[in-house]
Amino acid sequence: MEKWIKSLKTDTPQEGFELAITLAQKGVEYTQPSLKIRKKLRPKYSKNANSLIAASDVIAMHFQTVAAANNYWNTKAN
Amino acid sequence: MEKWIKSLKTDTPQEGFELAITLAQKGVEYTQPSLKIRKKLRPKYSKNANSLIAASDVIAMHFQTVAAANNYWNTKAN
Amino acid sequence: MEKWIKSLKTDTPQEGFELAITLAQKGVEYTQPSLKIRKKLRPKYSKNANSLIAASDVIAMHFQTVAAANNYWNTKAN
Amino acid sequence: MEKWIKSLKTDTPQEGFELAITLAQKGVEYTQPSLKIRKKLRPKYSKNANSLIAASDVIAMHFQTVAAANNYWNTKAN
Amino acid sequence: MEKWIKSLKTDTPQEGFELAITLAQKGVEYTQPSLKIRKKLRPKYSKNANSLIAASDVIAMHFQTVAAANNYWNTKAN
Amino acid sequence: MEKWIKSLKTDTPQEGFELAITLAQKGVEYTQPSLKIRKKLRPKYSKNANSLIAASDVIAMHFQTVAAANNYWNTKAN
Repeated sequence: MEKWIKSLKTDTPQEGFELAITLAQKGVEYTQPSLKIRKKLRPKYSKNANSLIAASDVIAMHFQTVAAANNYWNTKAN
Repeated sequence: MEKWIKSLKTDTPQEGFELAITLAQKGVEYTQPSLKIRKKLRPKYSKNANSLIAASDVIAMHFQTVAAANNYWNTKAN
Repeated sequence: MEKWIKSLKTDTPQEGFELAITLAQKGVEYTQPSLKIRKKLRPKYSKNANSLIAASDVIAMHFQTVAAANNYWNTKAN
Repeated sequence: MEKWIKSLKTDTPQEGFELAITLAQKGVEYTQPSLKIRKKLRPKYSKNANSLIAASDVIAMHFQTVAAANNYWNTKAN
Repeated sequence: MEKWIKSLKTDTPQEGFELAITLAQKGVEYTQPSLKIRKKLRPKYSKNANSLIAASDVIAMHFQTVAAANNYWNTKAN
Repeated sequence: MEKWIKSLKTDTPQEGFELAITLAQKGVEYTQPSLKIRKKLRPKYSKNANSLIAASDVIAMHFQTVAAANNYWNTKAN
């Protein structure tokens, strides 16, 4: 797979959250590499509340990792 | 997406909890950007106990991150 | 919402566990603010083993946070 | 509720694991205080593989907390 | 129950992973002590992808604990 | 089982993510050692959005472990 991540460091918490989303999506992509199949699944799960909550849970886990990697953006926050 | 978070720092645990809720919701919003669809899903999942528990789980994960970012609001507590 | 938490500090692990339960419930309450609806859901999920295990999982996550906030009640234990 | 835990400290990892099981069960007990109902649920979920895996997951979360509280029983291990 | 674990320390990450598997299995065993019932459940869940993913999740949680207990096998890795 | 992991250290976050995927797969492999059965399950779960999200969740948990083991690749990122 091509290079898609260089660092867990981000400038802001919001960019960190967006990186967490990327990481969650990459977990799906590596498991199902076919873009065609993933696109076909999207309309269904994106209208299913439980699937959306589950997706949000994966994002939450990655965000915890990214936040720790950035020392919770501490210097910015103070 | 517009700027929706500046910092993980909050003044109190309660504000931290409310930030965790925002983070959980944002995970859903990024995955399903359509407000119309999300609104349509809400009546159903918000009356489903398992969905509510799952939502509470995502909040719990984010609250752990936010609490760590605030050093568990230690100075306030002592 | 009114003030429902002031600190993650508790005197004992047991009070910490009970705070974790409150946090898990609050995650549900913020998502479904209607007491009437929540009361209606309770008889069903509280008799469903999988729902109870899922609730216990949310409590476990919050307990981890609360325990860390209290440095695992270390001084008491030694 | 009566006093059921005094400390997260245990002498051995195995006792720590058993404490994690107690914590997982307590999460269920606080949510469904009726012993009668819990006993009624047991035959079913304890023969359901997915429920058993879910229960094992809650135990795993608590074991992580207990292990951290005991500094992973480091001095014993070395 | 007989003694089944003495320490979270392992010589290698692979042994740590195998310990995580033992811990996940023990969580099931304590919840359902009957070997007969567990053996009966195995053919079904071990052919169900979602059950296997859920089992892998429990292992992942325990592996995180074991890895931390071993300081991520840092000295070996450098 | 043959040796499949030597270290949690990786040179880059991307290699760390790929190691997390390996760890998630190994959790499944140890639970269901038959390659034949696993191959049979793949077409179905890899086209099921909820299964893919669950798989991504296991990867997220392992990635958190691997990232911590690598100190979040801090020196590379600065």
